[in-house]
Amino acid sequence: MREVAAIGVGITKWGELWKKSLRDLYVETALLALDDAGVDRIDSMYVGSMSSGLFAGQEHIAAMLADYLGQASVPSARVETACASGGLAIKLGYMEIACGISDVVLVSGVEKMTDVSGNEATYALGTAADQEYEGYHGLTFPGLYALIARAHMDKYGTTREQLAMVSVKNHSNGAKNPIAQYPFEVSVEQVLSSVMIADPLRILDCSPITDGAAAVILCPVEMARKTGKAVIKITGVGHATDTIELSQRKDLTWLEAVYQAARGAYAMAGKKPQDMDVIEVHDCFTIAEICVMEALGLVEKGKGGPAVEQGMSALDGEFPINTSGGLKAKGHPVGASGVAQAVEITKQLRGEAGERQVADARLGLTQNMGGSGASSVVHIFERE
Amino acid sequence: MREVAAIGVGITKWGELWKKSLRDLYVETALLALDDAGVDRIDSMYVGSMSSGLFAGQEHIAAMLADYLGQASVPSARVETACASGGLAIKLGYMEIACGISDVVLVSGVEKMTDVSGNEATYALGTAADQEYEGYHGLTFPGLYALIARAHMDKYGTTREQLAMVSVKNHSNGAKNPIAQYPFEVSVEQVLSSVMIADPLRILDCSPITDGAAAVILCPVEMARKTGKAVIKITGVGHATDTIELSQRKDLTWLEAVYQAARGAYAMAGKKPQDMDVIEVHDCFTIAEICVMEALGLVEKGKGGPAVEQGMSALDGEFPINTSGGLKAKGHPVGASGVAQAVEITKQLRGEAGERQVADARLGLTQNMGGSGASSVVHIFERE
Repeated sequence: MREVAAIGVGITKWGELWKKSLRDLYVETALLALDDAGVDRIDSMYVGSMSSGLFAGQEHIAAMLADYLGQASVPSARVETACASGGLAIKLGYMEIACGISDVVLVSGVEKMTDVSGNEATYALGTAADQEYEGYHGLTFPGLYALIARAHMDKYGTTREQLAMVSVKNHSNGAKNPIAQYPFEVSVEQVLSSVMIADPLRILDCSPITDGAAAVILCPVEMARKTGKAVIKITGVGHATDTIELSQRKDLTWLEAVYQAARGAYAMAGKKPQDMDVIEVHDCFTIAEICVMEALGLVEKGKGGPAVEQGMSALDGEFPINTSGGLKAKGHPVGASGVAQAVEITKQLRGEAGERQVADARLGLTQNMGGSGASSVVHIFERE
Repeated sequence: MREVAAIGVGITKWGELWKKSLRDLYVETALLALDDAGVDRIDSMYVGSMSSGLFAGQEHIAAMLADYLGQASVPSARVETACASGGLAIKLGYMEIACGISDVVLVSGVEKMTDVSGNEATYALGTAADQEYEGYHGLTFPGLYALIARAHMDKYGTTREQLAMVSVKNHSNGAKNPIAQYPFEVSVEQVLSSVMIADPLRILDCSPITDGAAAVILCPVEMARKTGKAVIKITGVGHATDTIELSQRKDLTWLEAVYQAARGAYAMAGKKPQDMDVIEVHDCFTIAEICVMEALGLVEKGKGGPAVEQGMSALDGEFPINTSGGLKAKGHPVGASGVAQAVEITKQLRGEAGERQVADARLGLTQNMGGSGASSVVHIFERE
């Protein structure tokens, strides 16, 4: 198998973008990534999108977007594992280059979420849970993660303030990211007094509804070396599933799919959690970031809350997490989030992250997740 | 790259199956395929589904179905290129084994289409076309293929009767296939007097709305050789796209993506169209089968109609096409159709196709298509 590198990245301002369609968002980020990579051809395309059908009334976007990018004829595949669709797209692009089928693969994620009403968006997002056994009973995602949060607080003594600190940290990072949907700081007090969504989660614990896209160009490492730029390799890939229904888990606080995906990625890269210099995780809700820290092995089970409180995951902490602002502040166009994580880590490892740069970052990790953790994809990136 | 074989197939009765849910359909075919393959583990799963969101109110089916099959933790990906989703799933399963990441991959296709109203189903299917530039103007798929049919009749003199003969042939084959949704014969007169849908296409020119699933187990050829059964290899893989909008094509009658996908598959397998013993094509409408015969290179441009009339594609013809009954008679659960094509070809090459067996079939081809031909995936199968 060949080694694979990320040689180009593209992302544009995320938010409630009523003047841009799904295809606009896709094409502008793809062109930025192609320009950044300096390539003049694409052999294959993968597009991660959770529900272009329910959000935008359009399936078959793989072909539509290849066409709209002026690349009709290039093989193009849309892939989906709910909010982990972007991470899945990277995995498949990686595989196609590793096995020598293609040399230049455009991997994108895109979601246009604000053209439907709030109720329709809640319904569409709810289709990532078990609709027959969870949705039918009225459970939506804030409710599912609220159950996880209550269980974590009960079992480990995680505090309401510790949850808030995840939001405070991610907004502090997001304020330094020009493409973030909400590039402003918030205080613990603001989080604690924000509108209640599903007890104990308040609106400032929840990632927003976002229009956005992100793109990464992958190629063999030998090709990346010829660009003269820093070579950012993907050295670990992990992907796993768990029960889709939360009620079927042995422990509500433990994200087994994240653990399994991370284990696979660490083994492949020959690295351990403690080696990571910079990390992007799937903080769809504040509690998710805490559970993911534990499942990735950055802290012991139950110690995520205190670790956040002690600043371990801050920009200047031991393991800076979500330097981009995370899903919370940067936004969460569901199918795009996993690809945006790779954009951020590539920028960090190249030393191009501006105000939010982690000094001398050489090893990075991305962790993308679907549903209440039923799918997870983990990648490890390494500067050569 | 390793050689890849299909060692197990599973399919159950297709139709309007109100007593079976999406997960039931999936699991029963997956279990049949696992049983047929004689394997006791799955390393990875791909599920082709066009729009589980719009048809069944459920996204994230990759994880849900892994879970429901008792395989939570196994990496599972849902892939989509409209009605070519099943073919795409096979391509990706192939790739994963070829590059040595996995040994046993379960590739499935599933669509549960009859739990929504006819209008909703027409809308959902329409999302495979360009919704902003085609759907907005009222074009649905029968309309798009009617435009292709009219253009083909005008340019090449293809007759209304020749279109009908595709349906007659496929129903004749489907009458021999126990899992077909419509296992009965029809006459040219019946087709010509059936209800008009979009002039010149009548209802007996159109594939139906179907609930159904199909599954194939792929593995390395060395593993398949140990089973003692006939080894069915995948020796050619091709995938291409075309403009999603019909109006952007230079020639309405020419399916460029099919041509490109087939060219790729022939080159990889070192075979030519005339080598094929048995072929399954994407006959979503009768005209589609005629255009595909031309794009695959089985006949010259414009000669598809006369070839059907002369019996070239009949069960006892030069190139038996759609021995399964095709989408027309077997049914068209959109995301499953591409996988069902592989099931039929595998059975034919094993000599297990019963009444519809093509004598001594050694080489087979599947051609799956999305939208009005904006995506196509072609595979070549070979008995060792």
